[in-house]
Amino acid sequence: MKLVKTVAELREEIAAAKTAGKTIGLVPTMGALHEGHASLIKAANMENDFVVVSVFVNPTQFGPNEDLEAYPRTLDADCKLAEAMGADIVFAPSAKEMYPSEDMTWVEVTGNVTKVLCGRSRPIHFRGVTTVVSKLFNLAQPDRAYFGQKDAQQVEVLKRMVKDLFFNLQLRVMPIVREADGLAKSSRNTYLSGSEHQAALVLSRSLKKAQERFAAGERNAAALTEAVREEIAAEPMSNIDYVEIYRLPELQPVNGPLTGSSLLAVAVKFGTTRLIDNVILEEK
Amino acid sequence: MKLVKTVAELREEIAAAKTAGKTIGLVPTMGALHEGHASLIKAANMENDFVVVSVFVNPTQFGPNEDLEAYPRTLDADCKLAEAMGADIVFAPSAKEMYPSEDMTWVEVTGNVTKVLCGRSRPIHFRGVTTVVSKLFNLAQPDRAYFGQKDAQQVEVLKRMVKDLFFNLQLRVMPIVREADGLAKSSRNTYLSGSEHQAALVLSRSLKKAQERFAAGERNAAALTEAVREEIAAEPMSNIDYVEIYRLPELQPVNGPLTGSSLLAVAVKFGTTRLIDNVILEEK
Repeated sequence: MKLVKTVAELREEIAAAKTAGKTIGLVPTMGALHEGHASLIKAANMENDFVVVSVFVNPTQFGPNEDLEAYPRTLDADCKLAEAMGADIVFAPSAKEMYPSEDMTWVEVTGNVTKVLCGRSRPIHFRGVTTVVSKLFNLAQPDRAYFGQKDAQQVEVLKRMVKDLFFNLQLRVMPIVREADGLAKSSRNTYLSGSEHQAALVLSRSLKKAQERFAAGERNAAALTEAVREEIAAEPMSNIDYVEIYRLPELQPVNGPLTGSSLLAVAVKFGTTRLIDNVILEEK
Repeated sequence: MKLVKTVAELREEIAAAKTAGKTIGLVPTMGALHEGHASLIKAANMENDFVVVSVFVNPTQFGPNEDLEAYPRTLDADCKLAEAMGADIVFAPSAKEMYPSEDMTWVEVTGNVTKVLCGRSRPIHFRGVTTVVSKLFNLAQPDRAYFGQKDAQQVEVLKRMVKDLFFNLQLRVMPIVREADGLAKSSRNTYLSGSEHQAALVLSRSLKKAQERFAAGERNAAALTEAVREEIAAEPMSNIDYVEIYRLPELQPVNGPLTGSSLLAVAVKFGTTRLIDNVILEEK
Protein backbone atom coordinates (compact mmCIF):
# COMPACT_ATOMS: atom_id res chain seq x y z
CA MET A 1 0.00 0.00 0.00
CA LYS A 2 1.18 3.48 -0.88
CA LEU A 3 0.71 6.69 1.08
CA VAL A 4 0.14 9.53 -1.39
CA LYS A 5 0.07 13.17 -0.29
CA THR A 6 -0.16 15.16 -3.51
CA VAL A 7 -2.79 15.53 -6.19
CA ALA A 8 -0.13 15.07 -8.88
CA GLU A 9 0.97 11.72 -7.48
CA LEU A 10 -2.59 10.49 -7.02
CA ARG A 11 -3.34 11.39 -10.63
CA GLU A 12 -0.38 9.31 -11.79
CA GLU A 13 -1.52 6.33 -9.75
CA ILE A 14 -5.08 6.59 -11.07
CA ALA A 15 -3.92 6.98 -14.66
CA ALA A 16 -1.78 3.85 -14.28
CA ALA A 17 -4.66 1.88 -12.75
CA LYS A 18 -7.00 3.02 -15.55
CA THR A 19 -4.47 2.13 -18.23
CA ALA A 20 -4.18 -1.32 -16.67
CA GLY A 21 -7.97 -1.65 -17.03
CA LYS A 22 -8.55 -1.79 -13.29
CA THR A 23 -11.84 -0.82 -11.69
CA ILE A 24 -11.47 1.74 -8.91
CA GLY A 25 -13.17 1.90 -5.52
CA LEU A 26 -12.99 5.12 -3.50
CA VAL A 27 -13.56 5.38 0.25
CA PRO A 28 -13.61 9.05 1.29
CA THR A 29 -12.90 9.48 5.03
CA MET A 30 -11.75 12.08 7.52
CA GLY A 31 -9.40 9.51 9.05
CA ALA A 32 -9.54 8.29 12.66
CA LEU A 33 -10.60 5.09 10.99
CA HIS A 34 -12.75 2.64 12.94
CA GLU A 35 -14.64 -0.56 12.15
CA GLY A 36 -17.26 1.40 10.26
CA HIS A 37 -14.63 2.62 7.82
CA ALA A 38 -13.06 -0.84 7.79
CA SER A 39 -16.33 -2.27 6.49
CA LEU A 40 -16.32 0.29 3.66
CA ILE A 41 -12.74 -0.45 2.64
CA LYS A 42 -13.41 -4.17 2.79
CA ALA A 43 -16.44 -3.80 0.54
CA ALA A 44 -14.43 -1.62 -1.86
CA ASN A 45 -11.73 -4.25 -1.95
CA MET A 46 -14.21 -6.99 -2.74
CA GLU A 47 -15.90 -5.07 -5.55
CA ASN A 48 -12.95 -3.31 -7.25
CA ASP A 49 -9.44 -4.00 -8.52
CA PHE A 50 -7.89 -0.87 -7.03
CA VAL A 51 -8.90 0.82 -3.77
CA VAL A 52 -8.21 4.43 -2.79
CA VAL A 53 -8.92 5.54 0.79
CA SER A 54 -8.77 9.29 1.24
CA VAL A 55 -7.94 10.65 4.69
CA PHE A 56 -8.66 14.36 4.84
CA VAL A 57 -10.15 16.38 7.68
CA ASN A 58 -12.02 18.71 5.37
CA PRO A 59 -12.03 22.23 6.84
CA THR A 60 -14.91 23.49 4.69
CA GLN A 61 -17.46 21.16 6.29
CA PHE A 62 -16.79 22.41 9.82
CA GLY A 63 -18.64 25.45 11.17
CA PRO A 64 -16.79 28.20 13.05
CA ASN A 65 -17.62 26.72 16.48
CA GLU A 66 -17.14 23.08 15.57
CA ASP A 67 -14.36 20.62 16.34
CA LEU A 68 -12.04 21.08 13.33
CA GLU A 69 -8.93 21.52 15.50
CA ALA A 70 -9.86 18.81 17.99
CA TYR A 71 -10.88 16.26 15.36
CA PRO A 72 -8.74 13.12 15.92
CA ARG A 73 -5.82 12.70 13.50
CA THR A 74 -4.27 9.23 13.49
CA LEU A 75 -2.67 8.83 10.07
CA ASP A 76 -0.22 6.05 11.00
CA ALA A 77 -2.93 3.87 12.48
CA ASP A 78 -5.24 4.76 9.57
CA CYS A 79 -2.65 3.54 7.07
CA LYS A 80 -2.25 0.25 8.94
CA LEU A 81 -5.99 -0.36 9.05
CA ALA A 82 -6.46 0.64 5.41
CA GLU A 83 -3.68 -1.68 4.32
CA ALA A 84 -5.08 -4.56 6.38
CA MET A 85 -8.48 -4.07 4.72
CA GLY A 86 -6.94 -4.14 1.24
CA ALA A 87 -6.42 -0.51 0.27
CA ASP A 88 -3.91 0.17 -2.52
CA ILE A 89 -3.57 3.89 -1.82
CA VAL A 90 -4.12 6.11 1.19
CA PHE A 91 -4.49 9.65 -0.13
CA ALA A 92 -3.78 12.12 2.68
CA PRO A 93 -3.42 15.59 1.15
CA SER A 94 -2.90 18.93 2.87
CA ALA A 95 -5.69 21.53 2.85
CA LYS A 96 -3.64 23.64 0.44
CA GLU A 97 -3.40 20.67 -1.91
CA MET A 98 -7.19 20.18 -1.93
CA TYR A 99 -8.01 23.90 -2.03
CA PRO A 100 -5.42 25.36 -4.42
CA SER A 101 -7.15 28.73 -4.97
CA GLU A 102 -7.62 31.61 -2.58
CA ASP A 103 -11.30 31.84 -3.51
CA MET A 104 -13.53 28.78 -3.38
CA THR A 105 -15.31 26.83 -6.06
CA TRP A 106 -18.34 25.36 -4.34
CA VAL A 107 -20.52 22.41 -5.24
CA GLU A 108 -23.80 22.85 -3.44
CA VAL A 109 -26.97 20.76 -3.32
CA THR A 110 -30.03 22.85 -2.47
CA GLY A 111 -33.53 22.02 -1.27
CA ASN A 112 -34.93 20.09 1.67
CA VAL A 113 -32.29 17.40 1.57
CA THR A 114 -29.61 19.84 2.80
CA LYS A 115 -31.88 22.08 4.89
CA VAL A 116 -33.41 19.69 7.43
CA LEU A 117 -31.80 17.65 10.24
CA CYS A 118 -28.05 18.49 10.46
CA GLY A 119 -28.51 21.15 7.76
CA ARG A 120 -30.35 23.33 10.28
CA SER A 121 -27.67 23.42 12.98
CA ARG A 122 -24.74 23.02 10.54
CA PRO A 123 -25.74 25.32 7.65
CA ILE A 124 -22.44 25.14 5.71
CA HIS A 125 -21.68 21.50 6.44
CA PHE A 126 -23.09 19.77 3.36
CA ARG A 127 -21.71 22.37 0.97
CA GLY A 128 -18.27 21.47 2.32
CA VAL A 129 -19.01 17.76 1.95
CA THR A 130 -20.27 17.97 -1.63
CA THR A 131 -17.38 20.22 -2.64
CA VAL A 132 -14.68 17.95 -1.29
CA VAL A 133 -16.38 14.78 -2.49
CA SER A 134 -16.66 16.25 -6.01
CA LYS A 135 -12.93 16.93 -5.97
CA LEU A 136 -12.21 13.39 -4.79
CA PHE A 137 -14.52 11.93 -7.45
CA ASN A 138 -12.73 13.87 -10.19
CA LEU A 139 -9.31 12.88 -8.87
CA ALA A 140 -9.92 9.20 -8.18
CA GLN A 141 -12.41 8.63 -11.02
CA PRO A 142 -13.94 5.73 -9.12
CA ASP A 143 -16.32 3.14 -10.53
CA ARG A 144 -17.79 2.89 -7.03
CA ALA A 145 -17.62 5.17 -3.99
CA TYR A 146 -18.37 3.94 -0.47
CA PHE A 147 -20.20 5.76 2.31
CA GLY A 148 -21.72 4.67 5.62
CA GLN A 149 -25.45 4.71 6.38
CA LYS A 150 -24.45 6.24 9.74
CA ASP A 151 -24.31 9.59 7.93
CA ALA A 152 -27.77 9.06 6.47
CA GLN A 153 -28.35 12.65 5.40
CA GLN A 154 -24.93 12.83 3.78
CA VAL A 155 -25.86 9.74 1.79
CA GLU A 156 -29.07 11.39 0.53
CA VAL A 157 -27.24 14.62 -0.33
CA LEU A 158 -24.53 12.76 -2.24
CA LYS A 159 -27.09 10.63 -4.07
CA ARG A 160 -28.68 13.79 -5.33
CA MET A 161 -25.35 15.36 -6.27
CA VAL A 162 -24.41 12.27 -8.27
CA LYS A 163 -27.80 12.30 -10.00
CA ASP A 164 -27.82 16.04 -10.75
CA LEU A 165 -24.20 16.41 -11.89
CA PHE A 166 -24.15 13.06 -13.70
CA PHE A 167 -21.12 11.66 -11.92
CA ASN A 168 -20.28 8.46 -13.70
CA LEU A 169 -20.09 6.14 -10.69
CA GLN A 170 -22.11 4.02 -8.32
CA LEU A 171 -22.69 5.13 -4.72
CA ARG A 172 -22.43 2.14 -2.39
CA VAL A 173 -23.96 2.62 1.03
CA MET A 174 -22.90 0.26 3.81
CA PRO A 175 -24.84 -0.52 7.02
CA ILE A 176 -24.07 1.18 10.34
CA VAL A 177 -21.43 -0.68 12.36
CA ARG A 178 -22.09 -0.62 16.11
CA GLU A 179 -20.17 -1.36 19.29
CA ALA A 180 -21.30 -4.52 21.11
CA ASP A 181 -23.33 -2.24 23.40
CA GLY A 182 -25.14 -0.69 20.44
CA LEU A 183 -23.38 2.69 20.12
CA ALA A 184 -22.87 3.53 16.46
CA LYS A 185 -19.16 3.64 15.59
CA SER A 186 -17.93 7.21 15.15
CA SER A 187 -14.55 8.92 15.20
CA ARG A 188 -16.12 11.32 17.69
CA ASN A 189 -16.84 8.51 20.20
CA THR A 190 -13.27 8.99 21.48
CA TYR A 191 -14.39 12.36 22.89
CA LEU A 192 -16.89 10.64 25.24
CA SER A 193 -16.19 10.04 28.93
CA GLY A 194 -17.19 6.63 30.28
CA SER A 195 -20.43 7.96 31.72
CA GLU A 196 -21.24 9.89 28.54
CA HIS A 197 -20.70 6.70 26.53
CA GLN A 198 -23.11 4.85 28.83
CA ALA A 199 -25.65 7.66 28.53
CA ALA A 200 -25.33 7.68 24.73
CA LEU A 201 -26.56 4.10 24.53
CA VAL A 202 -30.05 5.57 24.78
CA LEU A 203 -29.76 6.51 21.10
CA SER A 204 -29.53 3.03 19.62
CA ARG A 205 -31.87 1.64 22.32
CA SER A 206 -34.66 4.12 21.58
CA LEU A 207 -34.23 3.84 17.80
CA LYS A 208 -34.42 0.08 18.02
CA LYS A 209 -37.68 0.30 19.94
CA ALA A 210 -39.10 2.61 17.30
CA GLN A 211 -38.10 0.15 14.61
CA GLU A 212 -39.85 -2.64 16.51
CA ARG A 213 -43.01 -0.56 16.90
CA PHE A 214 -42.91 0.22 13.17
CA ALA A 215 -42.49 -3.49 12.40
CA ALA A 216 -45.48 -4.16 14.65
CA GLY A 217 -47.60 -1.79 12.56
CA GLU A 218 -47.18 1.71 14.02
CA ARG A 219 -47.38 4.22 11.13
CA ASN A 220 -47.84 7.42 13.11
CA ALA A 221 -44.64 9.45 12.66
CA ALA A 222 -45.35 11.76 15.60
CA ALA A 223 -45.98 8.83 17.93
CA LEU A 224 -42.68 7.23 16.93
CA THR A 225 -40.58 10.40 17.21
CA GLU A 226 -42.21 11.44 20.48
CA ALA A 227 -41.41 8.10 22.11
CA VAL A 228 -37.77 8.35 21.01
CA ARG A 229 -37.56 11.97 22.11
CA GLU A 230 -39.02 11.16 25.56
CA GLU A 231 -36.68 8.25 26.10
CA ILE A 232 -33.61 10.31 25.12
CA ALA A 233 -34.75 13.35 27.11
CA ALA A 234 -35.13 11.13 30.19
CA GLU A 235 -31.37 10.55 30.08
CA PRO A 236 -30.00 13.45 32.19
CA MET A 237 -26.73 13.85 30.23
CA SER A 238 -28.48 14.23 26.87
CA ASN A 239 -29.12 17.47 25.00
CA ILE A 240 -31.32 16.85 21.95
CA ASP A 241 -30.65 18.67 18.67
CA TYR A 242 -33.31 16.78 16.70
CA VAL A 243 -35.44 13.62 16.60
CA GLU A 244 -37.22 13.60 13.26
CA ILE A 245 -38.69 11.45 10.52
CA TYR A 246 -38.46 12.23 6.80
CA ARG A 247 -39.50 10.36 3.70
CA LEU A 248 -36.77 8.79 1.59
CA PRO A 249 -35.28 9.61 -0.79
CA GLU A 250 -34.36 13.27 -0.41
CA LEU A 251 -35.83 13.82 3.04
CA GLN A 252 -39.27 15.12 2.19
CA PRO A 253 -41.72 15.97 5.02
CA VAL A 254 -44.01 13.18 6.16
CA ASN A 255 -47.70 13.89 5.63
CA GLY A 256 -50.07 11.39 7.16
CA PRO A 257 -49.16 7.79 7.96
CA LEU A 258 -45.70 6.48 7.07
CA THR A 259 -45.49 4.73 3.70
CA GLY A 260 -42.61 3.49 1.60
CA SER A 261 -39.24 4.16 3.13
CA SER A 262 -38.56 6.74 5.86
CA LEU A 263 -35.57 7.89 7.86
CA LEU A 264 -35.83 8.29 11.62
CA ALA A 265 -32.75 10.28 12.61
CA VAL A 266 -31.43 11.77 15.83
CA ALA A 267 -28.66 14.19 16.77
CA VAL A 268 -27.94 14.54 20.48
CA LYS A 269 -25.16 16.14 22.48
CA PHE A 270 -23.56 14.35 25.43
CA GLY A 271 -21.30 16.87 27.11
CA THR A 272 -19.60 18.68 24.22
CA THR A 273 -19.86 15.70 21.88
CA ARG A 274 -22.60 15.68 19.28
CA LEU A 275 -23.60 12.20 18.10
CA ILE A 276 -25.92 11.14 15.30
CA ASP A 277 -27.72 7.86 14.71
CA ASN A 278 -30.62 6.65 12.61
CA VAL A 279 -32.81 3.79 11.45
CA ILE A 280 -34.63 3.32 8.19
CA LEU A 281 -38.30 2.43 8.60
CA GLU A 282 -39.62 0.48 5.66
CA GLU A 283 -42.06 -2.28 5.05
CA LYS A 284 -40.44 -5.59 4.28
CA MET B 1 -23.11 11.74 -37.14
CA LYS B 2 -25.71 10.93 -34.54
CA LEU B 3 -28.20 13.28 -32.89
CA VAL B 4 -28.61 12.25 -29.25
CA LYS B 5 -31.30 13.75 -27.02
CA THR B 6 -31.06 11.82 -23.77
CA VAL B 7 -28.46 11.48 -21.07
CA ALA B 8 -28.82 7.70 -21.12
CA GLU B 9 -28.06 7.49 -24.83
CA LEU B 10 -25.09 9.86 -24.56
CA ARG B 11 -23.70 7.73 -21.73
CA GLU B 12 -23.90 4.64 -23.92
CA GLU B 13 -22.10 6.39 -26.76
CA ILE B 14 -19.36 7.66 -24.45
CA ALA B 15 -18.92 4.27 -22.81
CA ALA B 16 -18.54 2.67 -26.24
CA ALA B 17 -16.01 5.28 -27.34
CA LYS B 18 -14.02 4.82 -24.11
CA THR B 19 -14.07 1.05 -24.47
CA ALA B 20 -12.74 1.45 -27.99
CA GLY B 21 -9.87 3.47 -26.53
CA LYS B 22 -10.91 6.67 -28.29
CA THR B 23 -9.96 10.12 -27.03
CA ILE B 24 -12.93 12.44 -26.65
CA GLY B 25 -13.28 16.09 -27.56
CA LEU B 26 -16.24 18.09 -26.22
CA VAL B 27 -17.54 21.34 -27.69
CA PRO B 28 -20.22 22.80 -25.41
CA THR B 29 -22.47 25.27 -27.26
CA MET B 30 -25.87 26.90 -27.02
CA GLY B 31 -26.45 26.16 -30.70
CA ALA B 32 -27.04 28.77 -33.40
CA LEU B 33 -23.66 27.61 -34.57
CA HIS B 34 -21.49 30.01 -36.55
CA GLU B 35 -17.91 30.02 -37.83
CA GLY B 36 -16.60 30.57 -34.30
CA HIS B 37 -18.16 27.28 -33.21
CA ALA B 38 -17.02 25.67 -36.46
CA SER B 39 -13.41 26.47 -35.56
CA LEU B 40 -13.87 24.77 -32.18
CA ILE B 41 -15.40 21.62 -33.68
CA LYS B 42 -12.68 21.51 -36.31
CA ALA B 43 -9.98 21.75 -33.65
CA ALA B 44 -11.71 19.06 -31.57
CA ASN B 45 -11.83 16.84 -34.63
CA MET B 46 -8.13 17.29 -35.33
CA GLU B 47 -7.08 16.56 -31.75
CA ASN B 48 -9.46 13.74 -30.73
CA ASP B 49 -10.87 10.48 -32.03
CA PHE B 50 -14.46 11.19 -31.03
CA VAL B 51 -16.17 14.59 -31.00
CA VAL B 52 -19.27 15.53 -29.04
CA VAL B 53 -20.95 18.87 -29.72
CA SER B 54 -23.57 19.79 -27.15
CA VAL B 55 -26.37 22.11 -28.21
CA PHE B 56 -28.27 23.32 -25.16
CA VAL B 57 -29.70 26.76 -24.47
CA ASN B 58 -28.96 26.59 -20.78
CA PRO B 59 -31.76 28.33 -18.85
CA THR B 60 -29.75 28.73 -15.62
CA GLN B 61 -27.25 31.12 -17.17
CA PHE B 62 -29.91 33.61 -18.29
CA GLY B 63 -31.12 36.31 -15.92
CA PRO B 64 -34.84 37.07 -15.53
CA ASN B 65 -34.73 39.93 -18.05
CA GLU B 66 -32.42 38.33 -20.57
CA ASP B 67 -33.02 36.72 -23.95
CA LEU B 68 -33.66 33.07 -23.00
CA GLU B 69 -36.88 32.85 -25.01
CA ALA B 70 -35.57 34.85 -27.97
CA TYR B 71 -32.22 33.06 -28.18
CA PRO B 72 -31.93 31.59 -31.70
CA ARG B 73 -32.64 27.85 -31.98
CA THR B 74 -31.50 26.28 -35.24
CA LEU B 75 -30.92 22.60 -34.47
CA ASP B 76 -31.20 21.30 -38.05
CA ALA B 77 -28.62 23.75 -39.35
CA ASP B 78 -26.46 23.11 -36.27
CA CYS B 79 -26.41 19.38 -36.97
CA LYS B 80 -25.40 19.97 -40.57
CA LEU B 81 -22.55 22.29 -39.58
CA ALA B 82 -21.38 19.99 -36.78
CA GLU B 83 -21.35 17.03 -39.14
CA ALA B 84 -19.45 18.96 -41.79
CA MET B 85 -16.82 19.92 -39.20
CA GLY B 86 -16.40 16.29 -38.13
CA ALA B 87 -18.62 15.87 -35.06
CA ASP B 88 -19.60 12.30 -34.14
CA ILE B 89 -22.42 13.28 -31.81
CA VAL B 90 -24.67 16.28 -31.43
CA PHE B 91 -26.11 16.12 -27.91
CA ALA B 92 -29.26 18.25 -27.74
CA PRO B 93 -31.04 17.47 -24.48
CA SER B 94 -34.18 19.04 -23.03
CA ALA B 95 -33.93 21.22 -19.91
CA LYS B 96 -35.65 18.46 -17.92
CA GLU B 97 -33.00 16.02 -19.07
CA MET B 98 -30.16 18.27 -17.91
CA TYR B 99 -31.90 19.36 -14.70
CA PRO B 100 -33.58 16.20 -13.41
CA SER B 101 -34.31 17.45 -9.87
CA GLU B 102 -36.77 20.05 -8.70
CA ASP B 103 -34.08 21.69 -6.56
CA MET B 104 -30.74 22.64 -8.05
CA THR B 105 -27.26 21.37 -7.46
CA TRP B 106 -24.99 24.32 -8.21
CA VAL B 107 -21.34 24.49 -9.12
CA GLU B 108 -20.14 27.99 -8.37
CA VAL B 109 -16.78 29.70 -8.74
CA THR B 110 -16.39 32.62 -6.34
CA GLY B 111 -14.02 35.58 -6.16
CA ASN B 112 -13.05 38.34 -8.55
CA VAL B 113 -13.09 36.14 -11.62
CA THR B 114 -16.90 35.82 -11.47
CA LYS B 115 -17.64 39.23 -9.91
CA VAL B 116 -16.15 41.69 -12.40
CA LEU B 117 -17.09 42.47 -16.03
CA CYS B 118 -20.19 40.44 -17.02
CA GLY B 119 -20.46 39.16 -13.44
CA ARG B 120 -21.60 42.58 -12.31
CA SER B 121 -24.53 42.98 -14.70
CA ARG B 122 -25.25 39.23 -14.97
CA PRO B 123 -24.86 38.05 -11.34
CA ILE B 124 -26.17 34.49 -11.84
CA HIS B 125 -24.69 33.94 -15.29
CA PHE B 126 -21.43 32.18 -14.47
CA ARG B 127 -23.02 29.95 -11.83
CA GLY B 128 -25.29 28.67 -14.59
CA VAL B 129 -22.34 28.20 -16.94
CA THR B 130 -20.17 26.30 -14.43
CA THR B 131 -23.10 24.13 -13.39
CA VAL B 132 -24.03 23.06 -16.90
CA VAL B 133 -20.43 22.64 -18.01
CA SER B 134 -19.74 20.41 -14.98
CA LYS B 135 -22.67 18.24 -16.01
CA LEU B 136 -21.40 18.06 -19.59
CA PHE B 137 -17.87 17.23 -18.41
CA ASN B 138 -19.18 14.36 -16.27
CA LEU B 139 -21.38 13.07 -19.08
CA ALA B 140 -18.94 13.32 -21.98
CA GLN B 141 -15.76 12.64 -19.97
CA PRO B 142 -13.70 14.52 -22.51
CA ASP B 143 -9.93 14.48 -22.79
CA ARG B 144 -10.20 18.02 -24.16
CA ALA B 145 -12.98 20.61 -24.05
CA TYR B 146 -13.14 23.54 -26.47
CA PHE B 147 -14.17 27.12 -25.76
CA GLY B 148 -13.80 30.39 -27.65
CA GLN B 149 -11.64 33.31 -26.49
CA LYS B 150 -14.61 35.51 -27.45
CA ASP B 151 -16.09 34.63 -24.03
CA ALA B 152 -12.86 35.59 -22.28
CA GLN B 153 -14.30 35.76 -18.78
CA GLN B 154 -16.06 32.42 -19.21
CA VAL B 155 -12.68 30.95 -20.16
CA GLU B 156 -11.06 32.28 -16.97
CA VAL B 157 -13.95 31.05 -14.83
CA LEU B 158 -13.81 27.58 -16.38
CA LYS B 159 -10.03 27.42 -16.01
CA ARG B 160 -10.43 28.00 -12.31
CA MET B 161 -13.27 25.49 -12.01
CA VAL B 162 -11.16 22.84 -13.72
CA LYS B 163 -8.22 23.65 -11.45
CA ASP B 164 -10.24 23.76 -8.22
CA LEU B 165 -12.42 20.69 -8.82
CA PHE B 166 -9.63 18.70 -10.47
CA PHE B 167 -11.50 17.92 -13.67
CA ASN B 168 -9.33 15.48 -15.55
CA LEU B 169 -9.22 17.23 -18.92
CA GLN B 170 -7.52 19.92 -20.91
CA LEU B 171 -9.27 23.22 -21.67
CA ARG B 172 -8.53 24.31 -25.22
CA VAL B 173 -9.19 27.95 -25.96
CA MET B 174 -9.54 28.98 -29.59
CA PRO B 175 -9.07 32.51 -31.02
CA ILE B 176 -11.97 34.84 -31.73
CA VAL B 177 -13.39 34.40 -35.23
CA ARG B 178 -14.53 37.67 -36.83
CA GLU B 179 -16.60 38.76 -39.80
CA ALA B 180 -14.62 40.29 -42.67
CA ASP B 181 -15.62 43.70 -41.27
CA GLY B 182 -14.16 42.87 -37.84
CA LEU B 183 -17.35 42.12 -35.85
CA ALA B 184 -16.72 39.15 -33.54
CA LYS B 185 -18.91 36.18 -34.52
CA SER B 186 -21.78 35.70 -32.09
CA SER B 187 -25.11 33.94 -32.18
CA ARG B 188 -26.59 37.24 -31.00
CA ASN B 189 -25.37 39.11 -34.10
CA THR B 190 -28.56 37.93 -35.84
CA TYR B 191 -30.50 40.29 -33.54
CA LEU B 192 -28.72 43.33 -35.02
CA SER B 193 -30.29 45.61 -37.65
CA GLY B 194 -28.01 46.66 -40.51
CA SER B 195 -27.27 50.01 -38.90
CA GLU B 196 -26.66 48.42 -35.50
CA HIS B 197 -24.23 46.00 -37.13
CA GLN B 198 -22.39 48.95 -38.71
CA ALA B 199 -22.33 50.80 -35.40
CA ALA B 200 -21.02 47.70 -33.58
CA LEU B 201 -17.88 47.69 -35.71
CA VAL B 202 -16.58 50.31 -33.29
CA LEU B 203 -15.85 47.49 -30.82
CA SER B 204 -13.23 45.63 -32.82
CA ARG B 205 -11.91 48.89 -34.28
CA SER B 206 -11.30 50.51 -30.91
CA LEU B 207 -9.87 47.31 -29.37
CA LYS B 208 -7.47 46.93 -32.28
CA LYS B 209 -6.24 50.49 -31.76
CA ALA B 210 -5.66 49.76 -28.08
CA GLN B 211 -3.70 46.67 -28.99
CA GLU B 212 -1.56 48.71 -31.37
CA ARG B 213 -0.90 51.35 -28.71
CA PHE B 214 0.05 48.57 -26.26
CA ALA B 215 2.40 47.07 -28.87
CA ALA B 216 3.91 50.55 -29.31
CA GLY B 217 4.69 50.68 -25.60
CA GLU B 218 1.63 52.15 -23.84
CA ARG B 219 1.35 50.50 -20.38
CA ASN B 220 -1.14 52.87 -18.75
CA ALA B 221 -4.37 50.88 -18.29
CA ALA B 222 -6.53 53.95 -17.74
CA ALA B 223 -5.21 55.64 -20.89
CA LEU B 224 -6.02 52.52 -22.94
CA THR B 225 -9.52 51.98 -21.52
CA GLU B 226 -10.42 55.67 -21.73
CA ALA B 227 -9.50 55.82 -25.40
CA VAL B 228 -11.64 52.75 -26.13
CA ARG B 229 -14.48 54.11 -24.03
CA GLU B 230 -14.41 57.47 -25.80
CA GLU B 231 -14.37 55.94 -29.24
CA ILE B 232 -17.30 53.62 -28.44
CA ALA B 233 -19.25 56.38 -26.66
CA ALA B 234 -18.85 58.57 -29.74
CA GLU B 235 -20.96 56.04 -31.65
CA PRO B 236 -24.53 57.30 -31.09
CA MET B 237 -26.17 53.82 -31.11
CA SER B 238 -23.88 52.44 -28.41
CA ASN B 239 -24.72 51.99 -24.74
CA ILE B 240 -21.65 50.93 -22.76
CA ASP B 241 -21.89 48.34 -19.99
CA TYR B 242 -18.15 48.17 -19.35
CA VAL B 243 -14.72 48.87 -20.85
CA GLU B 244 -12.15 47.43 -18.46
CA ILE B 245 -8.72 45.90 -18.10
CA TYR B 246 -7.86 43.05 -15.69
CA ARG B 247 -4.74 41.02 -15.13
CA LEU B 248 -4.74 37.43 -16.37
CA PRO B 249 -5.28 34.84 -15.13
CA GLU B 250 -8.32 35.19 -12.90
CA LEU B 251 -9.08 38.84 -13.64
CA GLN B 252 -7.26 40.58 -10.82
CA PRO B 253 -7.29 44.40 -10.62
CA VAL B 254 -4.48 46.20 -12.42
CA ASN B 255 -2.23 48.21 -10.11
CA GLY B 256 0.31 50.43 -11.81
CA PRO B 257 1.61 49.83 -15.33
CA LEU B 258 0.46 46.77 -17.28
CA THR B 259 2.78 43.78 -16.98
CA GLY B 260 2.51 40.16 -18.04
CA SER B 261 -0.81 39.34 -19.65
CA SER B 262 -3.97 41.46 -19.34
CA LEU B 263 -7.50 41.31 -20.71
CA LEU B 264 -9.09 44.41 -22.21
CA ALA B 265 -12.79 43.58 -22.46
CA VAL B 266 -15.91 45.45 -23.48
CA ALA B 267 -19.66 44.87 -23.24
CA VAL B 268 -21.86 47.28 -25.15
CA LYS B 269 -25.51 47.35 -26.09
CA PHE B 270 -26.66 48.28 -29.58
CA GLY B 271 -30.41 48.61 -29.44
CA THR B 272 -31.51 45.67 -27.30
CA THR B 273 -28.53 43.51 -28.27
CA ARG B 274 -25.64 43.24 -25.84
CA LEU B 275 -22.32 42.37 -27.49
CA ILE B 276 -18.97 41.51 -25.93
CA ASP B 277 -15.49 41.62 -27.41
CA ASN B 278 -11.94 41.62 -26.07
CA VAL B 279 -8.23 41.59 -26.78
CA ILE B 280 -5.40 40.17 -24.72
CA LEU B 281 -2.57 42.61 -24.13
CA GLU B 282 0.72 40.85 -23.58
CA GLU B 283 4.33 41.43 -24.38
CA LYS B 284 5.65 39.25 -27.17
